[in-house]
Amino acid sequence: MISSTVAEQLRRIAGKENVFTEPEDLTCYSYDSTHLSALPDVVVAPLTTAEISEIVKLANAERIPVIPRGGGTCLSGGTIPTDGGIILALHRMNKILEIDQDNLTATVQPGVITATFHQAVEKEGLFYPPDPQSMLMSTIGGNVAENAGGPRGVKYGVTKDYVLGLEVVTPTGGILRVGGKTIKNVSGYDLMRLFAGSEGTLGIITEITVRLVPLPEAKRTLLAMFDTLDDAAAAVSSIIKHRIIPTTLELMDHKIMELIESFKPVGFPMDVEGAILIEVDGSEHDVNKQIDKVAEICAACRSREVKVAKDQAEAAQLWAGRRSAFGALCKSARTVFVEDATVPRSKVPDIVKRIQEIARKYDLVIPILGHTGDGNMHPNILTDERNAEEMKRVDAAIDEMFEAALALGGTLSGEHGIGLIKRKYMPWQFGEEGLDFMRSIKRSVDPNNILNPGKMFLMEKGE
Amino acid sequence: MISSTVAEQLRRIAGKENVFTEPEDLTCYSYDSTHLSALPDVVVAPLTTAEISEIVKLANAERIPVIPRGGGTCLSGGTIPTDGGIILALHRMNKILEIDQDNLTATVQPGVITATFHQAVEKEGLFYPPDPQSMLMSTIGGNVAENAGGPRGVKYGVTKDYVLGLEVVTPTGGILRVGGKTIKNVSGYDLMRLFAGSEGTLGIITEITVRLVPLPEAKRTLLAMFDTLDDAAAAVSSIIKHRIIPTTLELMDHKIMELIESFKPVGFPMDVEGAILIEVDGSEHDVNKQIDKVAEICAACRSREVKVAKDQAEAAQLWAGRRSAFGALCKSARTVFVEDATVPRSKVPDIVKRIQEIARKYDLVIPILGHTGDGNMHPNILTDERNAEEMKRVDAAIDEMFEAALALGGTLSGEHGIGLIKRKYMPWQFGEEGLDFMRSIKRSVDPNNILNPGKMFLMEKGE
Repeated sequence: MISSTVAEQLRRIAGKENVFTEPEDLTCYSYDSTHLSALPDVVVAPLTTAEISEIVKLANAERIPVIPRGGGTCLSGGTIPTDGGIILALHRMNKILEIDQDNLTATVQPGVITATFHQAVEKEGLFYPPDPQSMLMSTIGGNVAENAGGPRGVKYGVTKDYVLGLEVVTPTGGILRVGGKTIKNVSGYDLMRLFAGSEGTLGIITEITVRLVPLPEAKRTLLAMFDTLDDAAAAVSSIIKHRIIPTTLELMDHKIMELIESFKPVGFPMDVEGAILIEVDGSEHDVNKQIDKVAEICAACRSREVKVAKDQAEAAQLWAGRRSAFGALCKSARTVFVEDATVPRSKVPDIVKRIQEIARKYDLVIPILGHTGDGNMHPNILTDERNAEEMKRVDAAIDEMFEAALALGGTLSGEHGIGLIKRKYMPWQFGEEGLDFMRSIKRSVDPNNILNPGKMFLMEKGE
Repeated sequence: MISSTVAEQLRRIAGKENVFTEPEDLTCYSYDSTHLSALPDVVVAPLTTAEISEIVKLANAERIPVIPRGGGTCLSGGTIPTDGGIILALHRMNKILEIDQDNLTATVQPGVITATFHQAVEKEGLFYPPDPQSMLMSTIGGNVAENAGGPRGVKYGVTKDYVLGLEVVTPTGGILRVGGKTIKNVSGYDLMRLFAGSEGTLGIITEITVRLVPLPEAKRTLLAMFDTLDDAAAAVSSIIKHRIIPTTLELMDHKIMELIESFKPVGFPMDVEGAILIEVDGSEHDVNKQIDKVAEICAACRSREVKVAKDQAEAAQLWAGRRSAFGALCKSARTVFVEDATVPRSKVPDIVKRIQEIARKYDLVIPILGHTGDGNMHPNILTDERNAEEMKRVDAAIDEMFEAALALGGTLSGEHGIGLIKRKYMPWQFGEEGLDFMRSIKRSVDPNNILNPGKMFLMEKGE
């Protein structure tokens, strides 16, 4: 509970119409896209960096947690206010401040919706590749804080690879500008990339400058179908081994395609165990050459059929299907755990086998999809959190999946972040020594632990 | 001076044949590629990470500075042992541990020479783009510590963009592994990119895993000559504005070409004020299309002549010329200041004009070259450090150049790092608030300030 004095000060800073304390308002900001939730004490929707600075100074003085929140699409519990405090709702800071055609950069406020931004830059013949599948609701600020990825990560990398400059409010309320519009920049520690992906624990991102690239001249989509999921996974590895880096390289198992078809039919095949959905982009000439080569590799990997989308409409339909996967999963079960353990690309066939074994061992339904071109798997556990017995099996299965991913040289998260959901696994990946290094950094800049406390790791050893 | 006990312990750890205390040995490790130098107390050449861990633990207990050193090609004074201490010479740790064809990654020890690594991966049809011009002597470890760039940065980015995993010895002697072989990785703070570019102040890099890309099918080189340097600079901006991102896009003024021709003649024209040297790579088809378009843009920017290298031998000759620029500069003057202030790409014509004005104002010879496709300028001041009067003008000119670069939205360093040379300018770019943020991080992980102390910034305010 915050005091009425603090509430009054927040109203003075942000305007009383932008401070919410009613239970129905607090509830709206209590959850993200995981199954977790907790009520904040207050929701504040600031309009300016100066307001955020004042709010953070107040919170730091009063030792009140501050949790920045974009679209609420986080898949790791990153915005859940487990210790109460202030939810900083950034939807009012939603201006595209500049698209700089000469420097191929754009500067935006954190609350800009990712898809809105895509459209704005593409209208200028430019391209911002990061494409988290929640892009219709997610914000650029949230994407930076979580270092969001997406299918196009295979060729184009993730959000962090596009961030050139940030304005950040520090945990003590200072305002820092790091980076800028320059493409090269090695002055001082790379605070920009430290803030990006820090899940709101080191600073509040208030302005973002990103690098844009020329919009590719052409793109084509191919769907390759396989009798076994193993063959499909082997084809993924084979494509990379043949030195082809497609724009996207997605693996889907039978169950995922079945769920998508019953949710939003796009014509995925119902009689195969696995399929890969591939997009290539570049010059017209290169795209045609690449798509032929990919088809050839799929055939060598025993594909049953390879279907090249005949036009952009057909391609768009296939991708809309893929994008509806999360909706389809959520409709099919009360509780869905979307994991994103990531392995070196050559280990995709191994992790697919291990996930299937784990599903059998714990008698669980775990449809598999993933941005497999970069080894970023999304095994999804369909369950019901009210079923305590099944939840025990779910927990054990998740433990085992992460154990398997790490044993294969992988990582806990490719693009969803750690948040609350994967915090307990952090010592498995980094050991206490690695965590202590991170804790030192956190403690040094946020001595009162007010910025998004409890996310990513606890400040003391133990869970 | 270190005590004989410490020297004895170092001999025990690294073997007595790998510990050097004779003046002639110390002198060899007293300098880098700036005009600065200072003698270390001892040089140790370890062979393993375990040895480095032991050395750092000892140094931390005894409060002795430790300065890691690769090829000694640093252009910002990053390896100068200004406070004495231990130079950690990493040339014995020079193994390419693995080139992973399935994952398109390579794992190397820090002492591997950059050019040796290029050759090794290119033999396998793979490509490691970062190409600092000192690549025949620089090491991958040094490149990571300084986040080295090079001409190919325009299209391919800098060293940091290729680092996937690091093994690091922390300032207290712990051994951390961060990242790995996965292409996506958002687990925890991005320590990898914090270590990279931290100039040896946060950890000693002992093993590096980098991402490789497929070797482009084709490349072509073009030299465009201009009557005025302004026209040449305008052409650089126009190429980017036309949404063409060449592999390299180098600007050279008359003076640079003259120096190169008298040092290692490659046929640069002597009757023009400016030239741009461009390489494009990709598929055969795309490369030809791009080179035609670039030629067209140069013509529109009033180029006097555009010469496309007829084969790889002719292209290689032009590039060998460009790479010999530093040698040519060093031969032509006793003291050379190679700066690397970087501006947004659209500001290249402005900074070129400002540098010319500054040269006139302070009556100095400042030949200009630069990786201008990414705004990374290299104005070079030819002088003589024994001439006290001229050195005053040099100092004032450098101050003014950095002031100009920052005023144009630029940064102090695009690829050479801050080291000692640019430390005094850090408050101009970050303010004391930004520096304090960096100091907090440094203090939190290196409480005794033993790792490369005094580089990048001082721990207390002031110079």
